[in-house]
Amino acid sequence: MGLYKGCGIELDHRFEPGKRDLISDVAGVTVGHCTKKSADGSVNTGVTVIMPHTGNIFREKLFAGSAVINGFGKTAGLVQIEELGTLESPIFMTNTLSVGTVLTGAVRYMLSQCPEIGDTTGTVNCLVTECNDGFLNDIRGLHVSEEDVFAAIGNASADFAEGAVGGGTGMKMMGLKGGIGSASRLCPIGDETYTIGALTMTNYGSMRDLTVAGDKIGRRISKQAEEDKGSCIIVIATDAPLSDRQLRRLASRSAHALARTGSYSGNGSGDVAVAFSTANRIPHAPESAALDIKMLAEDCMSLIFEAGTEAMEEALLSSLVHADTVRGFRDRTLKSLREYL
Amino acid sequence: MGLYKGCGIELDHRFEPGKRDLISDVAGVTVGHCTKKSADGSVNTGVTVIMPHTGNIFREKLFAGSAVINGFGKTAGLVQIEELGTLESPIFMTNTLSVGTVLTGAVRYMLSQCPEIGDTTGTVNCLVTECNDGFLNDIRGLHVSEEDVFAAIGNASADFAEGAVGGGTGMKMMGLKGGIGSASRLCPIGDETYTIGALTMTNYGSMRDLTVAGDKIGRRISKQAEEDKGSCIIVIATDAPLSDRQLRRLASRSAHALARTGSYSGNGSGDVAVAFSTANRIPHAPESAALDIKMLAEDCMSLIFEAGTEAMEEALLSSLVHADTVRGFRDRTLKSLREYL
Amino acid sequence: MGLYKGCGIELDHRFEPGKRDLISDVAGVTVGHCTKKSADGSVNTGVTVIMPHTGNIFREKLFAGSAVINGFGKTAGLVQIEELGTLESPIFMTNTLSVGTVLTGAVRYMLSQCPEIGDTTGTVNCLVTECNDGFLNDIRGLHVSEEDVFAAIGNASADFAEGAVGGGTGMKMMGLKGGIGSASRLCPIGDETYTIGALTMTNYGSMRDLTVAGDKIGRRISKQAEEDKGSCIIVIATDAPLSDRQLRRLASRSAHALARTGSYSGNGSGDVAVAFSTANRIPHAPESAALDIKMLAEDCMSLIFEAGTEAMEEALLSSLVHADTVRGFRDRTLKSLREYL
Amino acid sequence: MGLYKGCGIELDHRFEPGKRDLISDVAGVTVGHCTKKSADGSVNTGVTVIMPHTGNIFREKLFAGSAVINGFGKTAGLVQIEELGTLESPIFMTNTLSVGTVLTGAVRYMLSQCPEIGDTTGTVNCLVTECNDGFLNDIRGLHVSEEDVFAAIGNASADFAEGAVGGGTGMKMMGLKGGIGSASRLCPIGDETYTIGALTMTNYGSMRDLTVAGDKIGRRISKQAEEDKGSCIIVIATDAPLSDRQLRRLASRSAHALARTGSYSGNGSGDVAVAFSTANRIPHAPESAALDIKMLAEDCMSLIFEAGTEAMEEALLSSLVHADTVRGFRDRTLKSLREYL
Repeated sequence: MGLYKGCGIELDHRFEPGKRDLISDVAGVTVGHCTKKSADGSVNTGVTVIMPHTGNIFREKLFAGSAVINGFGKTAGLVQIEELGTLESPIFMTNTLSVGTVLTGAVRYMLSQCPEIGDTTGTVNCLVTECNDGFLNDIRGLHVSEEDVFAAIGNASADFAEGAVGGGTGMKMMGLKGGIGSASRLCPIGDETYTIGALTMTNYGSMRDLTVAGDKIGRRISKQAEEDKGSCIIVIATDAPLSDRQLRRLASRSAHALARTGSYSGNGSGDVAVAFSTANRIPHAPESAALDIKMLAEDCMSLIFEAGTEAMEEALLSSLVHADTVRGFRDRTLKSLREYL
Repeated sequence: MGLYKGCGIELDHRFEPGKRDLISDVAGVTVGHCTKKSADGSVNTGVTVIMPHTGNIFREKLFAGSAVINGFGKTAGLVQIEELGTLESPIFMTNTLSVGTVLTGAVRYMLSQCPEIGDTTGTVNCLVTECNDGFLNDIRGLHVSEEDVFAAIGNASADFAEGAVGGGTGMKMMGLKGGIGSASRLCPIGDETYTIGALTMTNYGSMRDLTVAGDKIGRRISKQAEEDKGSCIIVIATDAPLSDRQLRRLASRSAHALARTGSYSGNGSGDVAVAFSTANRIPHAPESAALDIKMLAEDCMSLIFEAGTEAMEEALLSSLVHADTVRGFRDRTLKSLREYL
Repeated sequence: MGLYKGCGIELDHRFEPGKRDLISDVAGVTVGHCTKKSADGSVNTGVTVIMPHTGNIFREKLFAGSAVINGFGKTAGLVQIEELGTLESPIFMTNTLSVGTVLTGAVRYMLSQCPEIGDTTGTVNCLVTECNDGFLNDIRGLHVSEEDVFAAIGNASADFAEGAVGGGTGMKMMGLKGGIGSASRLCPIGDETYTIGALTMTNYGSMRDLTVAGDKIGRRISKQAEEDKGSCIIVIATDAPLSDRQLRRLASRSAHALARTGSYSGNGSGDVAVAFSTANRIPHAPESAALDIKMLAEDCMSLIFEAGTEAMEEALLSSLVHADTVRGFRDRTLKSLREYL
Repeated sequence: MGLYKGCGIELDHRFEPGKRDLISDVAGVTVGHCTKKSADGSVNTGVTVIMPHTGNIFREKLFAGSAVINGFGKTAGLVQIEELGTLESPIFMTNTLSVGTVLTGAVRYMLSQCPEIGDTTGTVNCLVTECNDGFLNDIRGLHVSEEDVFAAIGNASADFAEGAVGGGTGMKMMGLKGGIGSASRLCPIGDETYTIGALTMTNYGSMRDLTVAGDKIGRRISKQAEEDKGSCIIVIATDAPLSDRQLRRLASRSAHALARTGSYSGNGSGDVAVAFSTANRIPHAPESAALDIKMLAEDCMSLIFEAGTEAMEEALLSSLVHADTVRGFRDRTLKSLREYL
């Protein structure tokens, strides 16, 4: 049994994917891209957004947890998630030097949705993640605008493209064209079947380490011998009722997923994972002092970890499978993995 | 309005203490001591135990969280509490070099209570905390035995002594006789009144820093000018429905409580806090995969922090107020604060 | 012996302040403000920058460490500081919703100083801290611009104003006008005298808790009874040769300093501290694989903690002492502490 | 090119092993076992010790850092290592319920080596790690004694056995006989060649996940389908001049190494790694206030990570390769991997 059969890649897996094999198999999760490319090829960047549910995420927060596998990164928004255990904004992905602009765009979006922010209530914590797309993109040009944030949100849908799109437009993975990848798994526990979805922005690793289902295929593709650099952002969504602590545990399995693809998280890699659960909604202004929460029994976490790691592994590789060859900044080119399969 | 009026100390406070003004005001919490003193005065040590509820704590765990304010300490058992967010053993306090012995005694006690441990289920995580009582105690003599653990448990009661007893027998605080102190506060939130109790083992600080209600009384007592050394263990119990993350937040306010008494947590201080809540019981073997949990609305945490810090501050000073003068190892003497009031 | 005698406040202290009693007593550290105020009073915000040394901070990084006392905050840049232990940008302070804009301004500044960033080398991690000035400032208006970042940097000097200036223009502390405060201490260790400086942006606490030298003066000023809200940013600089880990330890004593002023770090407070040392410069592109580092002997950290806590405490209160009364957004007014002394 | 050719296992590797392909290739590191087996087969446990250098480790400490990959474990001693960044005792491995006894034994050993401990100076932090060997061992019998600690230390040598010995006597890995494994790698950086060694105590995983060089060989061995349970301790030694922070980074790559062998760190796994460097010795009583330290340039960490992950991966599998089939408690049997090769 395998996945990606159409393009020659098979992944060993114990759990079945959801209907779309995308993070949007978790009900309510949608994804939107804004892709920025210039005619001369020097601009290859953009914004990807994950909308955690279909309501107002500030007013109805979700439990969330993060794991910094290697913190050579510039993600904004983790401090509060760690303290309060909740996500109160969409999750954004962009290039490293555009985090500030996307953060401001995100703030403007949240202000537009919530007139109470900064007025009758406090401020808002927006989560903006990043990788360095400077190989294919004129990253010093700061080509992402605040409007691009709104465009990405406007495009959010349960059906969305993978590969060289949105925040992943200019990314490089294992010497090949990386970008956005996604996958999902169905995880039966007791009478329920939970869904775990992953979405990654891949910009890490060395060709010689590229591993698919245990096979170091990178070595057959090229003798290229760069160090493991770049970064990787991994977002995990689930409808299993995980607490913030349990989500932190799940997020930390991104290290195992990265390792399955051949990574050892090199020094310069900003490998950051964030996981959230749609099962409990935490009101910004609760009506009572004590909330009723559902929490998965801890013993069941092994299944969550195993299914989640599968989803993350596939999402990482899916970014390669879906990315087209891109010629970019300074005529540099990154080839699609599909050219070698 | 004040506390400790009987002995001349008044503490400013916003919240009322519980009935006993002890950690045992949290229903179900009991405390026991085993005090070890030799006729020649060289042995001054012991074991104190906090029993978190009246049931079987392994089979019905409690949410817990910890904060390491300054980690120059040898506490055993924190790794699992951080990962799983639960307490599954009583909490023990002893001298630094006896942690191993008390840990083994604790394991034996848990094995006696739970024939399933190490047989049909996994092992058990016991929490053992410590301070260095080597000033008044022949600490190299390792005078605590595994039996002392059972003795302390056997003595556990809602009514218990403070001062130079149990694990606190040989401790030194701010140049005076420290030991075990406890206090509680009632915290009204919505329709409920929650109780927050603290129990401390105090072995920290310098005389010149000793501060009571903002008054640096230590300077009037002595010109002694030792650095802030030693350590402090702070345990907080509450019946408010706090999650493990919220308990971690509460535990971190021990830094503020220590500061109120004059401490800046010197280099050599092992300042460790652990908080647990009796509101939710987490079964070791749950009957269903999803548990129903009560969690306090986050906005209410400010009240918890304020009341908890008050309880911790009073518990720290209460150890001084209740400790008698002790002459110990090598004829060294630590005087009771009461001699100066 | 006291400090602030001119305005009626005396602080107990063991260590002497440096020449200016400002963070800039640490050689090479300068501070600049850009203050934004509108004629109608609705805009009260700005940017403050701390320049860590007089050279190129990206090319010659400094060891740094952070402590999140209460993470209800939106500071950007901590992830990499925690992983790599180095600071490679100036430190910025602004209002919460302007973090993105200041981050982009900071990136533009770093690009202007370092043509290699995003070209022949990687990207840059800029540290932007914040508090919510929405009481006196139309924070939803996002009135800070990228140019303000350059203006603040242009104003950087060893002599700088405290009070309602720069990032502190609209801040509120303990029900009074807060803002920017700074102080320093000289710490003799062995044959050396090290300097420890602190700079704070204060926006926290409740009037009834305001404490100066142990005296709860807030209660004599007003019966106002707000919860401890808002946030506080604390930056510590030193020329003592502290490693990143030792700086993390020092930063964590900000909890003790906050407590001395009456805070218990309420739920909504984003209390974040960052410490850096100018003693070692870590080249971005080292010439050899092994660097020679100076590190303070750990036993000496107690003195550093004690002197650093004094500097932080004074810096917190100095923001109150120096802030003028401000009338701002929606005609709200915050009075200067000086009106009550 | 491969390793383990003699027994049919080949591992892909980029770095060469040291002379012994053991952790003792790091100069000064020795390892000793005390193996406990009863005639009736019910006792299968013991103690393994890693001596970090040939001197007095309390008086000359080493930089160290840890990573808790999954904290379902009972390791004692990590709090202080995290705070102070130094190792001041040998590293012990034993069964979960014997941590207390081994800790007391370790304390007795340190007292015997250092009459100043608990007398003219403070106490000592001993590091004791553990896995649950209850499948093959009567773990409730607490068969490890304090004397066994001294026996293990007495046996310490650069040449030492792997497999079902010492602390690993009763351990179970991936449904097979696990135990102690070790390996090393030579890592050329600039003009130097550093050595990185790993030693593991393996007690984790499910047969169906067992992976060697990308090949899921476990599935060919058995249809057994246990969840990933148990634990794994990984110790890394190096003579590269890594700071405590860099050692923490290196230790965290144990997640990647575990993943290469098929693990996703199941819920019940206590996966803990500790790394230390022999390059700098930190005196307990320094003669001056500022120490001269060597620290590797951060850019070189990628090579350290890659070589270290290789050493850890091989050490994990080496425990399988070297373990003989063992029949133990209640006549349970675990087979050697060699029976299937």
